[in-house]
Amino acid sequence: MRHSEVLQAAGFTQADLTGGSLPVRSPIDGAVVAQVAETLAADMPGIIAKSKEAFKAWRVVPAPRRGELVRLLGEELRAAKDALGAVVTLEAGKITSEGLGEVQEMIDICDFAVGQSRQLYGLTIASERPGHRMMETWHPMGPCGVITAFNFPVAVWSWNTCLALICGDPVIWKPSEKTPLTAMTCMKILDRALERFGDAPEGLVQLVVGGPEIGEALVNSTDVPILSATGSTRMGGIVGPKVAARWGRPILELGGNNGMIVAPSADLDMAIRAIVFSAVGTAGQRCTTLRRLIVHNSIKDELVAKLVPAYASLPIGDPRSDGTLIGPLIDQATADRMQAMLDQAASEGGTVHGGGAANGVGDGAYVNPAIVEMPAQTETVKTETFAPILYVMGYDEFDEAIELHNGVPQGLSSCIFTLNMREAEAFLTAAGSDCGIANVNIGPSGAEIGGAFGGEKETGGGRESGSDAWKGYMRRQTNTINYSSELPLAQGVKFDI
Amino acid sequence: MRHSEVLQAAGFTQADLTGGSLPVRSPIDGAVVAQVAETLAADMPGIIAKSKEAFKAWRVVPAPRRGELVRLLGEELRAAKDALGAVVTLEAGKITSEGLGEVQEMIDICDFAVGQSRQLYGLTIASERPGHRMMETWHPMGPCGVITAFNFPVAVWSWNTCLALICGDPVIWKPSEKTPLTAMTCMKILDRALERFGDAPEGLVQLVVGGPEIGEALVNSTDVPILSATGSTRMGGIVGPKVAARWGRPILELGGNNGMIVAPSADLDMAIRAIVFSAVGTAGQRCTTLRRLIVHNSIKDELVAKLVPAYASLPIGDPRSDGTLIGPLIDQATADRMQAMLDQAASEGGTVHGGGAANGVGDGAYVNPAIVEMPAQTETVKTETFAPILYVMGYDEFDEAIELHNGVPQGLSSCIFTLNMREAEAFLTAAGSDCGIANVNIGPSGAEIGGAFGGEKETGGGRESGSDAWKGYMRRQTNTINYSSELPLAQGVKFDI
Amino acid sequence: MRHSEVLQAAGFTQADLTGGSLPVRSPIDGAVVAQVAETLAADMPGIIAKSKEAFKAWRVVPAPRRGELVRLLGEELRAAKDALGAVVTLEAGKITSEGLGEVQEMIDICDFAVGQSRQLYGLTIASERPGHRMMETWHPMGPCGVITAFNFPVAVWSWNTCLALICGDPVIWKPSEKTPLTAMTCMKILDRALERFGDAPEGLVQLVVGGPEIGEALVNSTDVPILSATGSTRMGGIVGPKVAARWGRPILELGGNNGMIVAPSADLDMAIRAIVFSAVGTAGQRCTTLRRLIVHNSIKDELVAKLVPAYASLPIGDPRSDGTLIGPLIDQATADRMQAMLDQAASEGGTVHGGGAANGVGDGAYVNPAIVEMPAQTETVKTETFAPILYVMGYDEFDEAIELHNGVPQGLSSCIFTLNMREAEAFLTAAGSDCGIANVNIGPSGAEIGGAFGGEKETGGGRESGSDAWKGYMRRQTNTINYSSELPLAQGVKFDI
Amino acid sequence: MRHSEVLQAAGFTQADLTGGSLPVRSPIDGAVVAQVAETLAADMPGIIAKSKEAFKAWRVVPAPRRGELVRLLGEELRAAKDALGAVVTLEAGKITSEGLGEVQEMIDICDFAVGQSRQLYGLTIASERPGHRMMETWHPMGPCGVITAFNFPVAVWSWNTCLALICGDPVIWKPSEKTPLTAMTCMKILDRALERFGDAPEGLVQLVVGGPEIGEALVNSTDVPILSATGSTRMGGIVGPKVAARWGRPILELGGNNGMIVAPSADLDMAIRAIVFSAVGTAGQRCTTLRRLIVHNSIKDELVAKLVPAYASLPIGDPRSDGTLIGPLIDQATADRMQAMLDQAASEGGTVHGGGAANGVGDGAYVNPAIVEMPAQTETVKTETFAPILYVMGYDEFDEAIELHNGVPQGLSSCIFTLNMREAEAFLTAAGSDCGIANVNIGPSGAEIGGAFGGEKETGGGRESGSDAWKGYMRRQTNTINYSSELPLAQGVKFDI
Repeated sequence: MRHSEVLQAAGFTQADLTGGSLPVRSPIDGAVVAQVAETLAADMPGIIAKSKEAFKAWRVVPAPRRGELVRLLGEELRAAKDALGAVVTLEAGKITSEGLGEVQEMIDICDFAVGQSRQLYGLTIASERPGHRMMETWHPMGPCGVITAFNFPVAVWSWNTCLALICGDPVIWKPSEKTPLTAMTCMKILDRALERFGDAPEGLVQLVVGGPEIGEALVNSTDVPILSATGSTRMGGIVGPKVAARWGRPILELGGNNGMIVAPSADLDMAIRAIVFSAVGTAGQRCTTLRRLIVHNSIKDELVAKLVPAYASLPIGDPRSDGTLIGPLIDQATADRMQAMLDQAASEGGTVHGGGAANGVGDGAYVNPAIVEMPAQTETVKTETFAPILYVMGYDEFDEAIELHNGVPQGLSSCIFTLNMREAEAFLTAAGSDCGIANVNIGPSGAEIGGAFGGEKETGGGRESGSDAWKGYMRRQTNTINYSSELPLAQGVKFDI
Repeated sequence: MRHSEVLQAAGFTQADLTGGSLPVRSPIDGAVVAQVAETLAADMPGIIAKSKEAFKAWRVVPAPRRGELVRLLGEELRAAKDALGAVVTLEAGKITSEGLGEVQEMIDICDFAVGQSRQLYGLTIASERPGHRMMETWHPMGPCGVITAFNFPVAVWSWNTCLALICGDPVIWKPSEKTPLTAMTCMKILDRALERFGDAPEGLVQLVVGGPEIGEALVNSTDVPILSATGSTRMGGIVGPKVAARWGRPILELGGNNGMIVAPSADLDMAIRAIVFSAVGTAGQRCTTLRRLIVHNSIKDELVAKLVPAYASLPIGDPRSDGTLIGPLIDQATADRMQAMLDQAASEGGTVHGGGAANGVGDGAYVNPAIVEMPAQTETVKTETFAPILYVMGYDEFDEAIELHNGVPQGLSSCIFTLNMREAEAFLTAAGSDCGIANVNIGPSGAEIGGAFGGEKETGGGRESGSDAWKGYMRRQTNTINYSSELPLAQGVKFDI
Repeated sequence: MRHSEVLQAAGFTQADLTGGSLPVRSPIDGAVVAQVAETLAADMPGIIAKSKEAFKAWRVVPAPRRGELVRLLGEELRAAKDALGAVVTLEAGKITSEGLGEVQEMIDICDFAVGQSRQLYGLTIASERPGHRMMETWHPMGPCGVITAFNFPVAVWSWNTCLALICGDPVIWKPSEKTPLTAMTCMKILDRALERFGDAPEGLVQLVVGGPEIGEALVNSTDVPILSATGSTRMGGIVGPKVAARWGRPILELGGNNGMIVAPSADLDMAIRAIVFSAVGTAGQRCTTLRRLIVHNSIKDELVAKLVPAYASLPIGDPRSDGTLIGPLIDQATADRMQAMLDQAASEGGTVHGGGAANGVGDGAYVNPAIVEMPAQTETVKTETFAPILYVMGYDEFDEAIELHNGVPQGLSSCIFTLNMREAEAFLTAAGSDCGIANVNIGPSGAEIGGAFGGEKETGGGRESGSDAWKGYMRRQTNTINYSSELPLAQGVKFDI
Repeated sequence: MRHSEVLQAAGFTQADLTGGSLPVRSPIDGAVVAQVAETLAADMPGIIAKSKEAFKAWRVVPAPRRGELVRLLGEELRAAKDALGAVVTLEAGKITSEGLGEVQEMIDICDFAVGQSRQLYGLTIASERPGHRMMETWHPMGPCGVITAFNFPVAVWSWNTCLALICGDPVIWKPSEKTPLTAMTCMKILDRALERFGDAPEGLVQLVVGGPEIGEALVNSTDVPILSATGSTRMGGIVGPKVAARWGRPILELGGNNGMIVAPSADLDMAIRAIVFSAVGTAGQRCTTLRRLIVHNSIKDELVAKLVPAYASLPIGDPRSDGTLIGPLIDQATADRMQAMLDQAASEGGTVHGGGAANGVGDGAYVNPAIVEMPAQTETVKTETFAPILYVMGYDEFDEAIELHNGVPQGLSSCIFTLNMREAEAFLTAAGSDCGIANVNIGPSGAEIGGAFGGEKETGGGRESGSDAWKGYMRRQTNTINYSSELPLAQGVKFDI
């Protein structure tokens, strides 16, 4: 399908796509596909105020009823799956299967959040005082700012929004400047759900399009108690302290420099498939992309000897075509940065396999994915480069592998391939991987929505999606209720007046 | 008992108490009771390094075994209850019953933490992929800095330390410069427990004594992943962003400006007792001290008319004496600030009952507690003054009471006195109190350790003590284990190489 | 709509409705609307074997995938809501709104179970031994027999089936002999979901129609590890021990004799509305129907004086008609039993208001609901009569009210109407209501699916629907994994060979 | 120490030990060490009534205060550890280390229960109705009958009693007729704790000594809502249905026929140590004793060749002596039954290694433990014989091993020894072990108290000790509180009067 057809199928009108100040390019061919309107910085106070107003109404809507809105959103997403997936492909350059997979993740989180909407479990707790009852309840917080990145232009929004909505929080969404169209498509889909829902407050979910000053308005507003930001460590390092300084709660999902340990007993065929998908999927632009391979020296040469030709045979090109596994990078600057890092790695003693420009479509930034054998874990290796570079290092002892693995500032995802239960278990202990996600015999990317997603260290510490990540969108309240006619003090304190 | 006897009973030697650069004054009479040694800023890197080393050993000690250390600490605290309570009284000026109550809180948290040490529950989670298993586990983080305030010189340390220890984290404790002796007493007690325990790593809990530069070393070190700080909002406003900026996790317990709503149906006798204890207990120097009374206009005059004489009759003086209910403020500066705020409140239209200096002991800062009837919730009322001032305001409608109640920047504790179940329940909802603690028919202070303690807004958002506050001392890890020989991708993504 | 039209709209063919040995009567008019086929006792072993076979396949289908089947069932139920609701009305005699409400409950449990299918949370637990890991997981059990009653002919099945399915258990359903058509309609709806789902094992959910010997085959089979039975205490008293004797797990939802305490402070208007709905809704044939009113003597006369005319004004008649609030009893035997109990109550000193036959349709058993003022809680009052009889008793002291309330052998649902928070709270304590459900200011019936449903004493102790009722359909496994190369024993036992 | 010294050290007076109708023999030498008084069946109603009375008081004591009693019990047990352990050895014949280990287990459960006493967590749950709140709370049940077996004469009582006590339930304990002295010792220890505690109701924990008719009084009384019984499947098969028939709740811990799979990759040295301890520890009289070894045929001969001499070298004899690993069986009848089963196994084609009488002390029943290589899993193998017989069978495929493993009627404990993570994981799945306990690389016995203890199938389904086993001692209550002035119905039902 041509770009215009994709956008038409997604419900865009000519007015949506023209006349704005923000040009939108498709990484597929570099073509400008739209000029969309940007939110004015001056409008941000009004937008936030509207959200705050919506909060007052939404917080007292029963959570299962709030869940009904999310359920309707899930229905609409199912109906619009192909159309939205195609916009993801158009705007983020993902291959078709991955674009659809991202929409599926939205659908999954809707189902999950609907179930949560009848839970939001707090605790009842045994009190030490006669005639007293204790409990812990969870309440909505207020407007939730959601800043998302280009590489998961819709799933991350849905993780945050579905949970925020059932938790009683309105959302103000600032997507990447590179992917406003997927965001606008989501809002169209949400509008259909809202219409069926009926009586949601106006401004429950608002979209703001534009650059850093728009995001800053959210970051700095005391009326936005929650600020969820996905993106680079550099960005998060600015946002986190600013939000903390005005007593807000940041939820940060930042960079990963994800490693895999390949142990001697690993099922190598399985490992190779996992490596290739994790390292080159989404053209190496996932936050969970595999970037470091730590291989036992007894099998390192064999593994590299198998990986290099596997890499060479990967179909690169138009992400819309059947069979393509590697689409374009998001832009040429990314391709340039990738090449610069490869050169730097080579200068540090690395042996580079692959890399360089590949044939693609129009002005798209297509590259060959690269494998780099490194003599040591240098600064280059410790840096997250958002492109398909896989550094390979050897190890002899298991503890050495763990040390290498944990020896980077990021802490998002990790894995080990081994059939040895002692190694598998050890990797998951307090002395094993220091990441928020640690897998055995699967790659670091492709988390299920049932688990909490996020990581430690420079990854920012936030958790989204499954488990009790919903608590990030609520405030906890500890209640003690005295229904007796006595007034005992805790800890046996005496104070008789 | 004389100061020297108290210190002797707590196990202090002459060497402990002399020769140091930090003078310690007892607020009881203003006497300098010791000159203790201070930690050098230059020693902090070594101290932190030692803690990091201890972490490596402690994190792999099984949690129930770690709990055994806390159990022994509890036994030693039981044995030393009177001695430690007396030091609390000596150094913080609390009345005897409250000093003992604080030690009881330490004992309670020991018992609680011992039980937790066999739990530290994570989740097993249903996976969407055949032959896969998901789980969520919790792991130790590393050294935990604990900065405590003078007003709870030992309980807050024990909340943090007991949980940190069972969670596998070493502790570096920086107490208030005003209360080093209670801290040293705790370390002596802990040493006895450590000796009985046997093989804990050296440096598991370290005490650092001194001023802000000592604290800053903890705040700024990337080797101290957790920083728990209790104190003023001003302090927390500096600490929080700094810790966030270096990717640490702050646990902040800051100021409270705690209110009570007294509804028409309230049991007034009970309310009065609760008000007096909450407002003047610990001479108004609890973070949960009652500072604002929001009373239905139909009963306001009656309530004030009863409170004023009750206040006037409170025994003020030597906190060691039987019968004393109000001991000294921590220092004269606090007394001066109290008076200044009373003057300011008067200038804003407030009617002041009480206040001013009271008879006490030696150079202690003894004051009369004050009730101030305010025409409105002015800036003065919105400010936390760490002294026994209680502002009284009237209301007509329930919603108005809630609005007044929530109309301050702090969010720690709160309560309502009412026998009307609709009001009681409404106070605890999403549209009710915005505090971390919300009680019915008990005052805002005196939490049980079974609940999570902490608050929202400028109170800092941290949680300590009971419920799942232990999670603040651990990192969460999401694990997926593939035990099949297939490699399916989540969300049905296809990527066949 | 005529009966035949209702059945046609629900997808019945002439073959479905004729030729069988079991006549189906509509309580609306007593007309025989179908002759359906019965399951032969001789076929039960084969049916159970098929279920066991289905179990082997279904237990290894990932739970979220199992949840997808339930999600599709929810979609099909939404589409078929009117049609199925009408069959419920036809066969159980419920008024239209209640028939639809019951289907809505099915839809709600589908949504809830879908969310649960990504949870089924077990625990990870701290181990006392180095190099060991503990966890607790939940596994499917095997075929689950579900015996349901006429009064909730579809909702109870869906509670059990949705949970059993996501938990990995096949279902064999034996509905009441009086309501095979609603069951058959459900199977038709489920078939549509199964077809869309694709690859569920054959025999995953099977329907067996017939009398006690069919049920007994389920009760007695060791291949049916779970037996969920809803119905009379008499039935449950037989089923429970039989299932226990062959090591199965019974889930019993038996009789209720549900009471309401009306305290002096109650909002009487609200109480009256609640009483009338709870006592006469579904013509008094809910297991949670209000059967006993325990009223403070100060307001008893007033309350009865208001209730009697309210009862007299209730529209009784064709349940399909707009405005009807009371439809027919399930059969004439029930009406006769009701009258006999009223006579008995009168002989015990009761004053009967109402009762007796009412105008209705055809041969339907329409009755006037009855209020009986009782001088004491006699045996008659302690007996559950499945009909709209409400016994009224007075009390003076709160404790007396609780004693009366708990003084019956059943323990399902209960409530109090009061605006006094002390009474409201006291009702919910260990010394308050002894029922599985205890409400404040709402009637005993009409539970939300988010909570666990069931009761104590002769109600049987089972729990279904929300909370962690899913655990009733799974087995718990405690796992310890030693990944070290040592073999320490728990509790420090030494045993060196 | 001589028997009389052991009993004296445990606090027995001459009066305790003489004049009663029940002779107590020590299995060490067969000597009668006491004649203790038995409870009269006629006294049981009074005992139960006293317990019910105690319940009324105990249920309203705050749970953390109830926990204080358990904490004191733990302190007293620590002080009496050696003395009580010696009585266990005297009366049950356990070797000293195991006697002490059992007391340690009591101490551990005390610590655990104390922690739980501030939890007993219920849930707060999101309600679908505006102005409504839902929660789930847990309340005490009433008297809890505890019937224990000779082989764990004190630990099982403590599991039940510590949890029952913190949950608010009084206990009536009927120990094995073979071990009244350990029970009496426990009561003496508990009495010391009760005295320190102060104000517990009389009859909170009562001991009844005697035979089946005493137990039956507990089994059949409707005033004993919980009946926890540990012992044989035969006993449980009688007790379970009886308790069910009178609406009580049975907690059954019955027989195990616990297996171990030894896979080709197993660490054989470790496996051998685990096998020997699990199979002959407590002379094969643990409910978790290893009874079946399912070994891969490739290593079966090697394993047996190592086990047989290991068995032959085990020190058998006086359990009080240092170095003894196998003490006496409980009585000669057990030894006879063991020999009969060995003969039967031989007649079924088994090759018997070991067995037969061993040298011991006086009239004690000392036997050589036996290994029996079996050609198939015959009925003999499927039968639990409470003695040190280990049946060995071979397998070729993993699925075959699982089938053998699960092919017995019992379902308590199980394990696998393997270093292969796929096998380890598979053993723990829905298609793996069907037992309540499933371990990897540790034997089936020696559970930690942090996990729930119990099993499936004929093991009875009960759970005790850790995790949320405490829920077995409480009743769940689902609460909905309406604090609004509206009365909406769930599921959108309309019923306007």
